[in-house]
Amino acid sequence: MKKSIGGNTILHPHPVVLVATYDKDGKPNMMTAAWAGICCSKPPCVGVSLREATKTYHSIMHSKAFTVNIPSRDFVKQADYAGLVSGSKADKFKVTGLTPVKSEVVNAPYVKELPVALECMLKQSVQIGLHTQFIGEILNVLCDEEVLGPNGLPDIEKLKPLIYATGNMAYYSVGGFVQKAFTIKEYGK
Amino acid sequence: MKKSIGGNTILHPHPVVLVATYDKDGKPNMMTAAWAGICCSKPPCVGVSLREATKTYHSIMHSKAFTVNIPSRDFVKQADYAGLVSGSKADKFKVTGLTPVKSEVVNAPYVKELPVALECMLKQSVQIGLHTQFIGEILNVLCDEEVLGPNGLPDIEKLKPLIYATGNMAYYSVGGFVQKAFTIKEYGK
Repeated sequence: MKKSIGGNTILHPHPVVLVATYDKDGKPNMMTAAWAGICCSKPPCVGVSLREATKTYHSIMHSKAFTVNIPSRDFVKQADYAGLVSGSKADKFKVTGLTPVKSEVVNAPYVKELPVALECMLKQSVQIGLHTQFIGEILNVLCDEEVLGPNGLPDIEKLKPLIYATGNMAYYSVGGFVQKAFTIKEYGK
Repeated sequence: MKKSIGGNTILHPHPVVLVATYDKDGKPNMMTAAWAGICCSKPPCVGVSLREATKTYHSIMHSKAFTVNIPSRDFVKQADYAGLVSGSKADKFKVTGLTPVKSEVVNAPYVKELPVALECMLKQSVQIGLHTQFIGEILNVLCDEEVLGPNGLPDIEKLKPLIYATGNMAYYSVGGFVQKAFTIKEYGK
């Protein structure tokens, strides 16, 4: 018997990403978001949902670009801070000591110290409710070589990304390998 | 120095969910998706991106409803299968032995054996590219009592959801607690 808990934003696991932008004056800013996910394979797109109250919302509306940076678990302190404090009140790059680097492909900075950055051009914005979803076409992905696997893509065991757990209001790490995907071609065989 | 790996759908970690629907004849079906994420807090909404080639795409277009079911790691075999085989070729509930139960709030079934189900009414569909994103308003969440924490919300340590890692093409489990969220009110203090 299942228990009803009402409408709620439960979708374990949530990712933890830092969205970096330039404001209209060219000043870099970053904020942490968990309402994010891949939403198309061709072209590759990521959706990030932000409230209009954030500085980043207005920066994306102006610049039409952003980067999505994936912190490893070593950066949990910076990630938590960047989700709590507004860029209109603090220079979050300066406070955390992280470094904004201008992307070569979009009008946005990426975060030098974080292992992976998705360089995104705004493709669509979708007004949903409290949040507006920004759909960015991923023009390029930048990766630290140390997190790449033998196939040239990020290896989750090396990347060690954070997970956000809504119900626990806490960050978790990625655990052990369960099994390869797309292996069971016929069930039970 | 970062390495460019081109545009790619990298956003570790991805969730693993089973989207369940009724087709136009009322037959239940489910499919696994990883291109999914929460996209609004008020109203609570989840976005799930599907290709037009899937049976589920047409079922949602018809019924305007779906459930998003979260498998624990014990259901990795069923989840992998339901992402590989089309509902137009097999009765995936019958083959896996999972049970469709009619939702009391939307015109879609949920998967009885999976610990959490989000009951969603289609709010918007967003044509992006190869994938169309279905934004569902989460009218209710059904949970097995065993996965609830003391605050009445799912506890990720009890739920044990799967993670999909694009680069590894593999499923992972959730690992250890890193730290509470929203605790660092002022950086470094």
